[in-house]
Amino acid sequence: MADTELDEAKVPFPASEAEEGEQLDEENRLKPEFIDAVRESLEEGDEGRTYDLVEPLHPADIADLFELLEPDRRGELAAAITDLMSGEVISELNDYVRDHMIEALPAAAVAVIAEQLETDDAVQLIEDLDPKDQRAILDELDPENRAVIESALSYPEETAGRLMQRELIAVPEHLTVGDLIDYMREQDDLPTDFWEVFIVDHRHRPLGTCRLSWILRCPRHIALTDVMQRDQTLIPVIMDQEEVALRFQKYALISAAVVDENGRLVGQLTVDDIVHIISEEAGEDALLMSGAGEGDINEPIRDAYSARVRWLVANLGTALVASLIIAAFGAAIEKLVALAVLMPIVASIGGNAGTQTMAVSVRALATNQLTRSNTRRILWREMRVALLNGVTVATLIGLATAVIFSPLLGIVIASAVIINICTAGLAGVAVPVLFDRMGQDPAVASSVFVTMITDSMGFFAFLGLAVASGLTG
Amino acid sequence: MADTELDEAKVPFPASEAEEGEQLDEENRLKPEFIDAVRESLEEGDEGRTYDLVEPLHPADIADLFELLEPDRRGELAAAITDLMSGEVISELNDYVRDHMIEALPAAAVAVIAEQLETDDAVQLIEDLDPKDQRAILDELDPENRAVIESALSYPEETAGRLMQRELIAVPEHLTVGDLIDYMREQDDLPTDFWEVFIVDHRHRPLGTCRLSWILRCPRHIALTDVMQRDQTLIPVIMDQEEVALRFQKYALISAAVVDENGRLVGQLTVDDIVHIISEEAGEDALLMSGAGEGDINEPIRDAYSARVRWLVANLGTALVASLIIAAFGAAIEKLVALAVLMPIVASIGGNAGTQTMAVSVRALATNQLTRSNTRRILWREMRVALLNGVTVATLIGLATAVIFSPLLGIVIASAVIINICTAGLAGVAVPVLFDRMGQDPAVASSVFVTMITDSMGFFAFLGLAVASGLTG
Repeated sequence: MADTELDEAKVPFPASEAEEGEQLDEENRLKPEFIDAVRESLEEGDEGRTYDLVEPLHPADIADLFELLEPDRRGELAAAITDLMSGEVISELNDYVRDHMIEALPAAAVAVIAEQLETDDAVQLIEDLDPKDQRAILDELDPENRAVIESALSYPEETAGRLMQRELIAVPEHLTVGDLIDYMREQDDLPTDFWEVFIVDHRHRPLGTCRLSWILRCPRHIALTDVMQRDQTLIPVIMDQEEVALRFQKYALISAAVVDENGRLVGQLTVDDIVHIISEEAGEDALLMSGAGEGDINEPIRDAYSARVRWLVANLGTALVASLIIAAFGAAIEKLVALAVLMPIVASIGGNAGTQTMAVSVRALATNQLTRSNTRRILWREMRVALLNGVTVATLIGLATAVIFSPLLGIVIASAVIINICTAGLAGVAVPVLFDRMGQDPAVASSVFVTMITDSMGFFAFLGLAVASGLTG
Repeated sequence: MADTELDEAKVPFPASEAEEGEQLDEENRLKPEFIDAVRESLEEGDEGRTYDLVEPLHPADIADLFELLEPDRRGELAAAITDLMSGEVISELNDYVRDHMIEALPAAAVAVIAEQLETDDAVQLIEDLDPKDQRAILDELDPENRAVIESALSYPEETAGRLMQRELIAVPEHLTVGDLIDYMREQDDLPTDFWEVFIVDHRHRPLGTCRLSWILRCPRHIALTDVMQRDQTLIPVIMDQEEVALRFQKYALISAAVVDENGRLVGQLTVDDIVHIISEEAGEDALLMSGAGEGDINEPIRDAYSARVRWLVANLGTALVASLIIAAFGAAIEKLVALAVLMPIVASIGGNAGTQTMAVSVRALATNQLTRSNTRRILWREMRVALLNGVTVATLIGLATAVIFSPLLGIVIASAVIINICTAGLAGVAVPVLFDRMGQDPAVASSVFVTMITDSMGFFAFLGLAVASGLTG
């Protein structure tokens, strides 16, 4: 966990971030031909050729290579390029791919990798392993690193405590800019990359923060307390990562101090670790709303099955409700089979409209744009959009039905479509908002309820109006 | 566009980032009671009280306040707190809310705001205005700033050229660390915040980059060329913002150099501007897949209507295909009305399964995890998940149908469900992949096609098997 580069030469030469012309396509993805060449060299057992192929890649691309290869080949690749398996590769790997590989390595080998990582990456490396494997690896670490990682693992999953790195620069308040620069030049065990320096009191509580650009632009004699920003965003160590991601976005943070329950500085979070979470949290809503769970293509099949089948079974339940409504109108359908032909249209359009509104509401809730302060206004907005949509679609389907079947049936289906699209607009806002107020993630279960409401209302309004209008009499 | 703070005192005191206890709830959202208090003060025309209420807020929270207030009140608020309307507030505002407000302000007032912003924020401020308003504001700017903004506006929308800031630190290669620090202490018109220094050749082409932390930790006599990292991620000025966001994520960048077609350094991108895009791009897939367009709750109703109604009409088209299939089996339904009762279940389950697989595929394509190299493997993976899901759901619905209706109908619906869920798995991968290969955004239109396939196959498999099995004979 020390930064060996700076220790040795005081002059850092970080890993290459070159654009690799031959290996990457125009969208910066590894070319299939390159993957084929690696696969071939692995099949032939030609470790030298494998190494030569992989060596020019950026660590992030090596991580991609592992993910794109078949699971069986990943162990062979790791064996062929052991000394390229840097912390950067490990921390960029997909969780499932990483855990799969780590489980296949001996504990001592994992410990060697962990020692060279910063705290947050080392924690990520082992946090999902089962307790026995985790213990075996921890026992191989030197006592200081072990204590740091154990302390991070003591915080709940997906909190700031798990994500933060312990390595940071904290200095007392009486220093000048010059003192600080001298201190940094002399110290050997500082982090390689940092973006701000924290000024702390004698109890290690943050007093202020200095961005490096301010320090570099000030004369040496200026006191740090005159340069520092006193008000800063402090992240409590037990804050949920979703909340952390929102703070970083909202306040455009590059790094932030993490404090324990006594207000003491215990770590820092940097935006390069948070961007993954911002992207994950924003992207997971689409997966959750569809009922695909985590929806990671590297997830084991049994996990994907169990995440998805529960929503399909729930959907079966809601479809049965719709069927009961249809069954109640069995006699009407027997008399007029056109009802059976047209009824799925009403349900389908309502489902589509409900999904649209629900997606908008869920996103607005996730980004804190929809709050108690404007729920009524947004509901009213969605009802107006629904009415416009409803009238448009109802006119189209109503006219077509009037021409093909009968004018009365045209009026019936048009009315049912308007009713169902407006119901969809109402449900699309109300269901996610209610889940949110109950403290539930609105992305998870809203879909099942909204679909049940629009399906049922679709069949009920259409078949009910058909009977009431005397069409089936 | 100069940084006035540093110019005046050489000691920056940036805006407060305090957590405002009384105004924010536990999830960092403005409390409804606070919004009510502001609304009340506006209604009473008490500008002093409005100012006192808003003044302690962070700029990002002032932006939220505008968004949460009713559109009519926003102008009144802006008038009451003119000197709090900093660049930070403007750049944090939702696009629609900002454009609405900017259009209401006189050109000279907008120019005053634009002058104090960095290039990227100033461009964002006026890029969506109509050409006449844009011209009027540009004419009010001082010539130098006008030229810079006009040059940024000459790049296509949503490219690096629009997002980049021109303010950056570029120095020739012969400097030492000490020279650079002296240069930065002496220069008055440097950006306030920057994270790396670019080293350029005599044609202003980037040779390397130095993170500030490396500079601060090196003795003064070291040559910059010995500290700098030679290989860096260069962003072409016309690169699409989605691609830019992926690079920042993949390579964990804090800032990056933007180069023109001749390889000359023309600007820089910093991660605090990119996080919004990462979040937007990741979050928009859920909205696009649902057919809700941008899905911004601040979008004018007519825009929301036109974005959504086209997908509802497309959905009407696909629903008609399904209706035609049902109509072809009209005689069978007349003989056995149970078919009409049960057929929506088969279609609905297939639609749900298709949406799950599609959401997974679209996300994997968006994050470059699904490429030509592993498409066949992922397709095979999804088919196995589909088979497991299909057998589970088919068993449940098959048994229930066998008990309630007849064993033969149970076998028919179970077979149809398995066929439809497997079809859904195939379509859920194949449709987004095909759109992606044709250079289309797979999130946009996949949903309509997948639903059409699962609806049609659901009705066709169920009704077709019912007839073939002799159930309706």
